[in-house]
Amino acid sequence: MSFSLSEQNDTIIALATPQGVGAIAVIRLSGKEAISLTNEVFFGKNLEKQESHTIHFGTIRDGEKIIDEVLVSLFIAPKSFTKENVVEISTHGSSYIINQVLKLFIRKGARPAKPGEFTQRAFLNGQFDLAQAEAVADLIHADSETSHQAALSQMRGGFSSEIQELRSRLIHFASMIELELDFGEEDVEFASREELRALVERLLRVVEELILSFDLGNVIKNGVPTVIAGKPNAGKSTLLNALLNEEKAIVSEIAGTTRDFIEDEINIGGVIFRFIDTAGLRETTDTIEAIGVSRTQEKMKSASLILYLFDLGDTDLVEINRDVNKLENQGVPFLKVANKVDKGNEQLISELKEKHPDTIFISAGNKENLEGLKVRILELVNLDKFRTGNTVVTNVRHYDSLVKTRESLLDILSGLDNEVTNDFVAMDIRRSLHFLGEITGEITTDDLLENIFRNFCIGK
Amino acid sequence: MSFSLSEQNDTIIALATPQGVGAIAVIRLSGKEAISLTNEVFFGKNLEKQESHTIHFGTIRDGEKIIDEVLVSLFIAPKSFTKENVVEISTHGSSYIINQVLKLFIRKGARPAKPGEFTQRAFLNGQFDLAQAEAVADLIHADSETSHQAALSQMRGGFSSEIQELRSRLIHFASMIELELDFGEEDVEFASREELRALVERLLRVVEELILSFDLGNVIKNGVPTVIAGKPNAGKSTLLNALLNEEKAIVSEIAGTTRDFIEDEINIGGVIFRFIDTAGLRETTDTIEAIGVSRTQEKMKSASLILYLFDLGDTDLVEINRDVNKLENQGVPFLKVANKVDKGNEQLISELKEKHPDTIFISAGNKENLEGLKVRILELVNLDKFRTGNTVVTNVRHYDSLVKTRESLLDILSGLDNEVTNDFVAMDIRRSLHFLGEITGEITTDDLLENIFRNFCIGK
Repeated sequence: MSFSLSEQNDTIIALATPQGVGAIAVIRLSGKEAISLTNEVFFGKNLEKQESHTIHFGTIRDGEKIIDEVLVSLFIAPKSFTKENVVEISTHGSSYIINQVLKLFIRKGARPAKPGEFTQRAFLNGQFDLAQAEAVADLIHADSETSHQAALSQMRGGFSSEIQELRSRLIHFASMIELELDFGEEDVEFASREELRALVERLLRVVEELILSFDLGNVIKNGVPTVIAGKPNAGKSTLLNALLNEEKAIVSEIAGTTRDFIEDEINIGGVIFRFIDTAGLRETTDTIEAIGVSRTQEKMKSASLILYLFDLGDTDLVEINRDVNKLENQGVPFLKVANKVDKGNEQLISELKEKHPDTIFISAGNKENLEGLKVRILELVNLDKFRTGNTVVTNVRHYDSLVKTRESLLDILSGLDNEVTNDFVAMDIRRSLHFLGEITGEITTDDLLENIFRNFCIGK
Repeated sequence: MSFSLSEQNDTIIALATPQGVGAIAVIRLSGKEAISLTNEVFFGKNLEKQESHTIHFGTIRDGEKIIDEVLVSLFIAPKSFTKENVVEISTHGSSYIINQVLKLFIRKGARPAKPGEFTQRAFLNGQFDLAQAEAVADLIHADSETSHQAALSQMRGGFSSEIQELRSRLIHFASMIELELDFGEEDVEFASREELRALVERLLRVVEELILSFDLGNVIKNGVPTVIAGKPNAGKSTLLNALLNEEKAIVSEIAGTTRDFIEDEINIGGVIFRFIDTAGLRETTDTIEAIGVSRTQEKMKSASLILYLFDLGDTDLVEINRDVNKLENQGVPFLKVANKVDKGNEQLISELKEKHPDTIFISAGNKENLEGLKVRILELVNLDKFRTGNTVVTNVRHYDSLVKTRESLLDILSGLDNEVTNDFVAMDIRRSLHFLGEITGEITTDDLLENIFRNFCIGK
C-alpha cells in the first residue's frame, strides 16, 4: 500500500454494511468525484446543487435500465468521516443490486476500496490520530461492555491525550537540551538535570503502568482464558453447558438482532470468559483427566482462571487437599467449586466449610448457585483499575511502542547517571519521542500503516 | 397479527442491515415518537428542531454512558418510506453496539418490529399497494437480472396498473348492472349484455395470459430446474463442475462484495439454472444411472430442462437413438450434448451431425465449447415474452387470485349463456372484482396480511 498522490485523490467505493440478506445495504464512496460520479447515474435531482448532510430519493440507472430506488446521503468535504466528499447510497439489501451498483461505479471510474481505506483517509486527512483510527476497528469487533468501553474511550482520544501529554513534556526538555547544544562550548544549562531526571522517572512510572495495563487490556479485548479442571464425571461438561445455555438465552433476547452466539465464550458482568479446549468437555465422555495429567497442566498454564470442579459424592478431603496444593503451585488464580451439592454428603460439606471456606457449592445439573459462582469468577478477575477510568492498553502495537519507550527512558536515566554529553541525552529523548509518536501516528511509515489498515474490513 | 390502532401508532425499531461484521449498521425507527425518542438519547443537537431528510452527527448515550458516535437521518411524516416519522441511526457495525442501542430504545418505549412491519405500515398508510409491497421482498431476494427486473417492475407498479385497469372496466359494468337492479321490474338495460360478454371475454384472455406467464415467472424467480442425465462416466460431474467453476470466478469478481455462492445454481445470461440432485453427481463415483432408471425418470419429470450427456468414446448411434426416443416421451425440453469431443471418434461425430444435427459437441474436461452450450441452454428457455416487457406473474398468491378470477369470469359467461337474472350476474362480477382486489390489496384480511409480511425479514 503506497500513498501516491494519485491514489489518495481517486474516488473509492465499497459496501459498508455486512453481506447477507437485510432490508437495506449502504454503499459508500469517498473522494473528490464522489458526488459528481453519483450524479451521473442518479435520477431525481441534481446532487451537485444540494447541501451537505442531506438525503435524496431517486433511482440509480445504468443507461436506460433502473437498478434500484435508493436514498443518497451527501457529505461535502471537509464535513465528512474522511474529510473528503462522501456519498452513502442506501439500496434495497439485495446482493444482486449491490453488485450492479458497485460494477456501475467502477465502470464510471471509482476504485474498489482497500480494507480500512476510508479510515486511513480519515487519519491521513487529520480527522483523528492513529490510535483513534485503530480503535475504530476495535470498536466494531468489541463484543462485551468492557472491550466496548475501552475501544470507545480510545477512539474518543482518551489514550491519545495521555500519550500526547507525556510527549509534550519530553519535547519541552528536548528543546531545552538542544538549545544548550546550540550554545556549544559555553556550558550553559537551560534544562536542569535534576528536573529532567525527575520528569523521566515520572514518565517511566506512567509508561510502566500502561505496560502493566496491557495484561488487563488483553483480557478485555480477547476474553479471559478459562479452564474447567477436574476428574472425569465431576460434571465439567454439565457446568459448561449450563453456563452456555444461560448465555444463549440472554443472547437471543431480541429476536433476529443479536450477535452470533460464540461457542465456549460466556459474558459475565460485561467481561468475556473464553473456555479453553472445551472440545473434549463437550463430548459425551469427560476426556479431561484429573489434575496432574501433563496435557491438562499445559492448558492450565495458558489459562488466566481455573475452575477446579469436584463431585461431592466422588471425592474426599485428602484428594481435594492434594489437588488444591497442585493448583497453588501453578500460580494461576483458581476457584474451588463443589458440584452436586443437591446429592448430600453433609460430612464433606462441613469439612470443606471449615478447611476451605472459599469453596463455592453448586449443582450444575440443577443450575443451583450459578449466579454465586459468576460473582466469584468476576471478583477473581480484578477489573477495578479499568472501571475507575484508568487508561488501558489493548493494542499489541501500542504495547511494543511503550516497551521501547521504557527502554529509551531508562537509557536517558543511565546517561544522566554516567554524565554523558548533551547530544547523547538529546538522542535518547528523541528516541523516546519517536516511540511515543508511533502510537498516535505522528511518526509513521507506509509499512506501519499498511499493517494497521489491512486488518480492517472493506468499507470501513 | 392484528391491526389495532394502538399497535399501528406505536414506534417500532429494528436493525435494517444484515447481521455480521461490517463497517456500519443501520437501525431504523418508525412511528409518531421516532424522532422524540431518539432525541432523548442523542447528544449533539435538538433533533426535533431539524428538517426532514437531514443528517446529524452526535452520540447515543445511556445515561452517562456513551454507546456510540452515530449519524442520525431524519425523515419527517409523511415524507418517509412508511409515511410516519422515520429515523435511521447509522452506528459502527458492532453487534454489541447494535444490541445496546436496541435495548436502550426498547426501554424508552419503542417496540421491536415484526418481520415486514415497516413495509406493512407503508402499505397501510397508502405508500403503495399490496403487490408492490410484496415486490419489495422479491427485490431483496432477487439474484439474477431477470428476477431483479421482474421484482423492480412489480414494485414500481407495472403489474398493479394492469390489474387496476381490468378491475376498473369490470367496476363500470357492475355499477351499470346494479343500476338495472335498482329499476327492478322495469326491464331497462343500461349494460349491454353483448358488450359485457365481449368485455368478459377480453378480460379472460388477459387473465389467461397472466396465468400462463406464471410458469415463466416461477422460472425467473426460482431458477430453471435442470437435470444432467447420462450413463456413468459420461462426464456429468465434470460438466457440472466446469460450469460451477466459471460461475465462481464471475461471482468473486469484486472481492468481498459479491453474493454468497450457491452450490449448483448457475447464472446464464441473467437466468438462474438450478441443477437438481447434484449431490450424487458431485461424489467421486457417478451415481446417477443411465436414462431409464426409475429414480432418474422421477427427477427428470420435475425438471424444466434436461442436458442429455454422452461420451463419444463410449456409445453408439443405436444407444443414442434409444435414449433420445425415451427423452422425447418425457415431454421435457432437452439438449443432446456429446462430450469428450477432443478424444476423436470421427465416425460417430459425422453420424450424429447427419442424424442429430442439433447435437452440441463439447469437452467438459477441457472446457471446450461451454459457451456454445450456454447459448443453446438459453435458447431453450424462451424468455422473449419477459424481455419484451410483458407483465409476468411471479407470486403464487397472485396466481391463485388470477385462477379464481378466471373461474368467476367463466361463471359470468355461463350466466349470460343461460340468461340468468341480473342479480346473479352482478354477484359473479363482484366475485371477480374481489379476487382482482386481493392482488393489489383493495380487499384484504388480517390473515392475508400476516401471511404476506411474516415472510419478510425483520427491519424491512
